[in-house]
Amino acid sequence: MINNIRIVLVNTSHPGNIGAVARAMKAMELTNLYLVNPKVFPHVEATARAAGADDLLANANIVSSLAEALQNCELVFGTSARMRELPAMVVDPKAAAAKISTVKTSPINIAIVFGRENNGLTNDELQLCNYHIYIPTSANFSSLNIAAAVQIIAYEIKMALAQQINTTDNQRVDTLATADEILLFYQHLEQTLIKIKFLNPQKPRRLMQRLKRMFNRTHLEKKELNILRGILSAVESCEL
Amino acid sequence: MINNIRIVLVNTSHPGNIGAVARAMKAMELTNLYLVNPKVFPHVEATARAAGADDLLANANIVSSLAEALQNCELVFGTSARMRELPAMVVDPKAAAAKISTVKTSPINIAIVFGRENNGLTNDELQLCNYHIYIPTSANFSSLNIAAAVQIIAYEIKMALAQQINTTDNQRVDTLATADEILLFYQHLEQTLIKIKFLNPQKPRRLMQRLKRMFNRTHLEKKELNILRGILSAVESCEL
Repeated sequence: MINNIRIVLVNTSHPGNIGAVARAMKAMELTNLYLVNPKVFPHVEATARAAGADDLLANANIVSSLAEALQNCELVFGTSARMRELPAMVVDPKAAAAKISTVKTSPINIAIVFGRENNGLTNDELQLCNYHIYIPTSANFSSLNIAAAVQIIAYEIKMALAQQINTTDNQRVDTLATADEILLFYQHLEQTLIKIKFLNPQKPRRLMQRLKRMFNRTHLEKKELNILRGILSAVESCEL
Repeated sequence: MINNIRIVLVNTSHPGNIGAVARAMKAMELTNLYLVNPKVFPHVEATARAAGADDLLANANIVSSLAEALQNCELVFGTSARMRELPAMVVDPKAAAAKISTVKTSPINIAIVFGRENNGLTNDELQLCNYHIYIPTSANFSSLNIAAAVQIIAYEIKMALAQQINTTDNQRVDTLATADEILLFYQHLEQTLIKIKFLNPQKPRRLMQRLKRMFNRTHLEKKELNILRGILSAVESCEL
């Protein structure tokens, strides 16, 4: 759980969106929700869309001004869908998350502010923010749902704090086959292909090369190797 | 506009979610929406939540099987909220987007598949995918709304295509096999294994699952697929 980051929603119209924001936050381990003058809250639609994150709704801080929501915050981000005439420092969600992750150890309070569904934050409100977060969108259709915007930023924060991006390959369940086992498999495969007359040893062309390249790419596990050798044996015992 | 990437929703229950997905896509310049057996569609709630992305709904391809939605796709990602016992290669959204951005210049068709709201994709469906995308979430609350999941992945794709991240994977010499070709190969493989009595259809255990997982990992090229099917045909004509 990340306790020093608050998500602040200003003057939200639709209670369903507040619920969806709570769900988006909780899935990314954010817990602190501030609501500045929500139009309709609490509401059954908020609870429904929270889908199990209703503890965040129950614990939400309902306040009557943005300044109040930002009390004790050392670092404030405001989200903005359009460029302002006098913009603050503008960062994308990744850069914002990077900034947040670098200060996470210190006891600093951070707020990320989201404006009204129809027209965002006012200039006065944005001027309470150290940074503006701009989420890159299509030039022709920049309309993001508020919960979708929260989801992207919360996701980037989680990724930045985790800092251990899982790319490929950590998910192996079985031991990998060794090079010598694979070599024996290739020999077995070649013999079998000759036996079933798929491979002509007088004119081998590049068949084995291609098959080896394919199997090398997949990086065989021991169990898979055993299955493949089992298949080869079954083929051999079939034909007289 | 990005035309070679399709978002595929399998058996979605709530039309509002379909609309929210369309909005999430359009804001990130994705346009191709496939709906596999949606429970309720079209619907006023879908249009409402699309909030201006209703052109994507009007142009959505409604199909009756996942295989149909994946026709002509060379690269298929399936999203999964839980770890499977026999996982494919698992990537996070950033890594998935990096892979997508490296192949974007070639005329390759890419699908990203999202499962049912309540219980995701079946193992059979996931086995049609080359990669699984896992979105990192809280260990205690991993429940993401489907449109939120689409939003995160679409955002990462937009970021990656904008930055043109160069990773590896440019080493392919041949055209990749499509999902429907691979499906036919799996059926052929299964028949052959039954014929040579290596696979007992009464007690299949997890043999086909393991083999599919292995071949999905290697990401077959068309020529390789032809060789493998040639081997299967040679095996069939050998015995008896």
